[in-house]
Amino acid sequence: MKLAFIGSGIMGEPMCGHLLAGGHAVALHSRTKSKAERLIAAGATWCDSPADAARDADIIFVNVPDTPDVGKVLLGVNGVIESARPGTIAIDHSTISPTATREMASKLAAKQVTLLDAPVSGGDVGAKNATLSIMVGGDKAAFDRALPLLQLLGKTITYAGRSGNGQLTKLVNQILVSVTNLAVSEAMNFAQQSGLDAAATIQAVGGGAAGSWQLQNLGPKMLKGDFTPGFMIDLQQKDLRLVLESAKELNLSLRAVALVSDLFATAQSRGWGREGTQALFKTIGRSDWP
Amino acid sequence: MKLAFIGSGIMGEPMCGHLLAGGHAVALHSRTKSKAERLIAAGATWCDSPADAARDADIIFVNVPDTPDVGKVLLGVNGVIESARPGTIAIDHSTISPTATREMASKLAAKQVTLLDAPVSGGDVGAKNATLSIMVGGDKAAFDRALPLLQLLGKTITYAGRSGNGQLTKLVNQILVSVTNLAVSEAMNFAQQSGLDAAATIQAVGGGAAGSWQLQNLGPKMLKGDFTPGFMIDLQQKDLRLVLESAKELNLSLRAVALVSDLFATAQSRGWGREGTQALFKTIGRSDWP
Repeated sequence: MKLAFIGSGIMGEPMCGHLLAGGHAVALHSRTKSKAERLIAAGATWCDSPADAARDADIIFVNVPDTPDVGKVLLGVNGVIESARPGTIAIDHSTISPTATREMASKLAAKQVTLLDAPVSGGDVGAKNATLSIMVGGDKAAFDRALPLLQLLGKTITYAGRSGNGQLTKLVNQILVSVTNLAVSEAMNFAQQSGLDAAATIQAVGGGAAGSWQLQNLGPKMLKGDFTPGFMIDLQQKDLRLVLESAKELNLSLRAVALVSDLFATAQSRGWGREGTQALFKTIGRSDWP
Repeated sequence: MKLAFIGSGIMGEPMCGHLLAGGHAVALHSRTKSKAERLIAAGATWCDSPADAARDADIIFVNVPDTPDVGKVLLGVNGVIESARPGTIAIDHSTISPTATREMASKLAAKQVTLLDAPVSGGDVGAKNATLSIMVGGDKAAFDRALPLLQLLGKTITYAGRSGNGQLTKLVNQILVSVTNLAVSEAMNFAQQSGLDAAATIQAVGGGAAGSWQLQNLGPKMLKGDFTPGFMIDLQQKDLRLVLESAKELNLSLRAVALVSDLFATAQSRGWGREGTQALFKTIGRSDWP
């Protein structure tokens, strides 16, 4: 199958690498050519625009930062829509607005191009090890056709229903991740400040109703003062903005998400935007963190 | 060993039953004698006051609702302090103020009575099945002496350090439980209102960084509209009041706990105080719940 890949950032590069390693021809475009060099060396064919990359492709993968970037790549000047043939599938792995996704899908559908929204979770480690979770919205037949390729990229691949539902599922994931992180941050500050052995406290309570992935994985990092990013606050903030925008469209009040987002803004103002989300711990805690 | 047991409520009754079943003589007092009848039939000896129950005991168990109740039982008129012999251990399974616990421990210590604070988690089911988690603060030698008895009551028994640390550990547990519950409540409302198959969404995201006990156990109940109590909102509120009081003593801001407590107050005002904590889901959601 002829593939196109657009975006060779921290997630896109290893994902594109897995497709190449799977024996597929890949036409590659990236905003910054220098970031594509390793993939070109691995056999990808460089293209000067999304339209060039998409021209001969059966399936087009997109992995760029945010909603406007996806809009430009798919629908803009020299975008996918200018060259993609009828019957092509576009798979967007970026985390972007569910509503914008549906609008783009309908514009592409007018050219018989099927858009699948397929945001991922699992971070750069998941991308490197092909252990990502991928949540997919859009036409089921297109999903079935794309599935063997998605299985080169991730481990848990879920079909979530109509266009936009992959994005919505990812946003549910981000609500859970961020508010549970706040639970752990408050609990670890309370444990530490009250004089408990906070690491032993995780052991004592983590196996029961208080347990979570965030507690087991971020709790110990908080206590060690290890704020190296598994997932960066700046990126989490982008996703929470999408959550709050969607909640507004639904007339839904998400006070805990709004609170976390506000606290992450404080973290960003203190220069911690590129630290891991576990830096929420120090954001709400003692005032003497560097 | 001669035991005393004070309090035969929803938790105390099955716990006292395990001690009797373990072959121990138990002198029993309870505020309401009728609630003690099954235990008396099972071999407990009725006593008219905490002082009477404590008179010949080596170890005294207390399981009553709140801080003032424990204060009355231990230090009040006809309380434990009036009759307990030097060398006796008092084990308080109630969830109460860590600070008050330390004050009571020091008053009892003046009479050579050692107080262990040993709040439990696991609910009435855990009490019945002797699978409670028990978090213990106080003198280590007294803990070691009491351990074989605690093992009749629970499965995970943790020594948390000095007096009050059992209570503090329980409060850390309640911070995690309640704020993670809020994460799940917001996520499930978002999933449902946005048109996702919310049960399938739990499957899709629950195995990764979004996963928690609360999601796996309370999420499905929320979606089914099953608000029968595993743990009642009224009791959760009492524990969150203790958390917020302790946080105030520590000059620690716990905004998410304050938010959950505020939302639970709304639930109580709507008549849902005796429903399970998963009723937080409907408290923040659609306005048409009965």
